[in-house]
Formats: sequence, C-alpha cells, structure tokens
Amino acid sequence: MKSHQIDVRIYYEDTDVGGVVYYANYLRFLERARTEWLRAAGFELSDIQRDMQAVFVVRRVEADYHLPALLGNLVTVTCEPRHVGFSKLVIDQSVRRGDELLLGAVVTLAFVSAGHNKPIPMPKQLRAAMQ
Amino acid sequence: MKSHQIDVRIYYEDTDVGGVVYYANYLRFLERARTEWLRAAGFELSDIQRDMQAVFVVRRVEADYHLPALLGNLVTVTCEPRHVGFSKLVIDQSVRRGDELLLGAVVTLAFVSAGHNKPIPMPKQLRAAMQ
Amino acid sequence: MKSHQIDVRIYYEDTDVGGVVYYANYLRFLERARTEWLRAAGFELSDIQRDMQAVFVVRRVEADYHLPALLGNLVTVTCEPRHVGFSKLVIDQSVRRGDELLLGAVVTLAFVSAGHNKPIPMPKQLRAAMQ
Amino acid sequence: MKSHQIDVRIYYEDTDVGGVVYYANYLRFLERARTEWLRAAGFELSDIQRDMQAVFVVRRVEADYHLPALLGNLVTVTCEPRHVGFSKLVIDQSVRRGDELLLGAVVTLAFVSAGHNKPIPMPKQLRAAMQ
Repeated sequence: MKSHQIDVRIYYEDTDVGGVVYYANYLRFLERARTEWLRAAGFELSDIQRDMQAVFVVRRVEADYHLPALLGNLVTVTCEPRHVGFSKLVIDQSVRRGDELLLGAVVTLAFVSAGHNKPIPMPKQLRAAMQ
Repeated sequence: MKSHQIDVRIYYEDTDVGGVVYYANYLRFLERARTEWLRAAGFELSDIQRDMQAVFVVRRVEADYHLPALLGNLVTVTCEPRHVGFSKLVIDQSVRRGDELLLGAVVTLAFVSAGHNKPIPMPKQLRAAMQ
Repeated sequence: MKSHQIDVRIYYEDTDVGGVVYYANYLRFLERARTEWLRAAGFELSDIQRDMQAVFVVRRVEADYHLPALLGNLVTVTCEPRHVGFSKLVIDQSVRRGDELLLGAVVTLAFVSAGHNKPIPMPKQLRAAMQ
Repeated sequence: MKSHQIDVRIYYEDTDVGGVVYYANYLRFLERARTEWLRAAGFELSDIQRDMQAVFVVRRVEADYHLPALLGNLVTVTCEPRHVGFSKLVIDQSVRRGDELLLGAVVTLAFVSAGHNKPIPMPKQLRAAMQ
C-alpha cells in the first residue's frame, strides 16, 4: 500500500461565490482519499471505530494552494504514507487536475481511543497494511 | 417558548459559484435556530445526548426558496413550534432579510434513542419548556 | 433520459455526532445526482453558467427521512424527472441502501438568469434531452 | 486593527461521528474570524468582490490541532496579522475554549483579481486599515 489515488468531481456544494472550490473543502477531498487508501488496504473506518473504539484524528495540516479547482472539474487526489509510526501517521497528499498540481499537503494523524484523544498503538495488521 | 429567532451572517463557506447561498446550507441555519430555541428553553443538545442517550432526528423537511441570501447578508432565522407531541415536533421556520422572506420551512422531528432511530417520549420538563 | 442514478460513499465529512449523516448533507447528494443526470444527457452546469449565463436554482424541497445513512455506507441516489416545463423542473429523488429507502424527495427547480433569480426558458435541446 | 476575535458556537453541522468537530470545519471558523476582522476594519468582502473585482484567496494553511471542540462549545477564534504585504497577508489564528488552545494556525492569503488567481496590490486604505 505505498500509495493510493481517487477521482473527485467538483460539484456546486464544493464551490463558493469567489468562483472556485472553497479552501476548507479540499480537506474533505484529502480525507476521502485517506479513507479509500485504508479501504483498499482492507480497513473500514467504521469498523475501526466500532470494533477498536478508536479513530484517526488529524494533528497537523500543511497545505499549499497552487491553483483553484473549478465547478465540473474531475480532480485526482493522492495519498502516500511518508511515515507510519506506532500511533502516528504522516501522509503526503495532493490534488491534481491532469498535469497541474492544484494543492499539495502533508497531513499528520494520530490513532486515538474514541472520545479520549489519547494516542494508542495501531493494531499490528493495520500498521503492516500501511507499509 | 412560543418562538425564537437568531441572526446568521452569510460567509463564503455558505455560498456557491452561482453567487448565492447553496441550497443545502439553509438547513444548517434552520438547525442552528432550533438549537438556540432549545438552549433558550434551558436545554443543551449535548446534555440530552449524553444524559438521556437521545437525539432529535429530522423526519421531514418542506422548504420553499423565495429569494437567495447573499455573501455578507445578516439574515434572521426563526423557529416556532406548531405541534409538540410525545416524541414528535413540528416546527415552522423561516429565513428573512429585513422585510423579505427568503425561505419558509416546516420541519418535523422525532425524539429517538441515540443509535436506534426509535421514537421515545420526550421528558416531561422538555415538553413543557417547548409549549 | 428518463432517470439516472449514482453511488455515493458516506465519509466522516457527511456524518455528525449523532452517529448518522447530517440531515442537510442528503441535499448535497441529491444535487450530485441531478448534476450527473444532466452530464449523462450531455450538459455541464459549468458550461450552462458560462455560456448561457444561467443557473438552476432550487425553489422547493420536500424530503422524507426514513432511515439514516451511516459512515462507510455506499448509497444509491436516484433522479427521475416528473415534470419538465419551460423554465421549471420537478424531480423525484431517493437515497437507497440496497433495498432500503433511506430518503425520498421531490425537488422543484427553476432555470434562471445568473445573478437575477428570474426564470428564463430552457434551451430547446436541453429540454429535449431531459424528456 | 492589530487583532480581532469572534465567538463561534459548535452545532451538529460542525461535528462528525467521531464525536468532535470535523477537521476541515475549523477552517470555516478561521475564515469567519478573518471576515469579521475586515468588517471591523470597515471592509466587506462582498463589496471588495463587486467593486474591485478582487478576492482574497488562501495560499497556505498550517494548522496544529491540539484539542477537539465539542457539540455545544462556545469557542473563541482569533485573527492577528503577522505580515501585511502589497498583495499578501500572513495571519496568526487560533481557536480557544476558555484557557485551552484547541487549534493554532498560520494562514497566508493573496489578494487576486476575481477569476484570474493573479495577485494584485491591495488598495492603500485597505492595507492601512489592516496595520
């Protein structure tokens, strides 16, 4: 599971009156790609929450906005793990439209017990699937 | 608690590339007004969820969109109970900008056990506060 | 183009602390299905806005919430025109999870000049493609 | 206009099934605070877009998520300019709940011609009001 990518269509809901995708909404797209990356690795976030009482929470986002996505665009959102720790993940992500880099991001996540915000070790098979 | 109203400022997040507030977002404003109506009556939704393991869920929305709200507008969102049943609420709501009616809505809610979607009776003091 | 359907995956962004999809977000799904229905008919909303200076605006929503969608669900969102007028559309829509009807809706739209909220006739080929 | 702050109430729309505010939604709060900071300085974003055909676009976000905001919380969102350039703004922002720092962020914005994503100089009186 070195990396993963998904396609995202831009709808009215994603845009704002400035004519482009609203800046917070790119973070929704990034999270969809991370979710699909885990699903492709065999893990469902809903199972993780129910069975392990655990969730991934974002600890840090660095995002550089290069070019705006527009209504109707089909963009590609990528997800590539840079570091897989015991309870910490660092992931390189991007949003592209064909050859154009629209957004680059580094997202740091922690695996925590649901409702407690306290880091706990990821199960071995989850870590293995990510590497 | 016959009725309640709140002011809502329109931000970029609320708009879309069509130049107006995105149609789904009015439902967020309606819910804010219902929440503040309950708060004014002495009830916090977070307490209700934690202490009673119960949530209000929307069963039906009828919304008529008359005029669009625009970036920077300060709109008034109203909430007036039409019917307070044992586990069912019917609420008349509106979004206004000064004298103009932007949106009128009737929202039907059920009081259900959290995670089960099964109607349960509202506590007596909650019903009393709504009437 | 009698009807159209799309699949929508439920992500964290769609849910709320009540454990289910937030009620306003179903309207985002309905709009995605309408957009894809038009795309399948050969029309892009972004082209319509740019070339015709026109947008579809929602005039009325009636939505019945039967069962909640949950994190990780793959739901089907349908779109079936009930009435295609000169500047008015009435569309039957639903959100389903397998055999279960989660939400049924009737959405009325108007075709208006962008920025003016004034109904204008849809181009003939657009109306034809919808019927 | 050294700094500005606003209060934001957390509603269901802001939360997710993990029980906390969804990570992208803090960026909506940050933008509300920036908008109110400009309004307090005498500038409306809608006027800027209409009269100057210009918009502020976000170029970079660095956000550190320390503690989650919860349903019903009243949080304070701050906005303090670190650098006011000719077409570039760097702003320190935070989300606090009483004494607790929930989120710290540095947001870089550019002033661009609407629809072109090309930096243009901010009007003198706008820059002056920010400093």
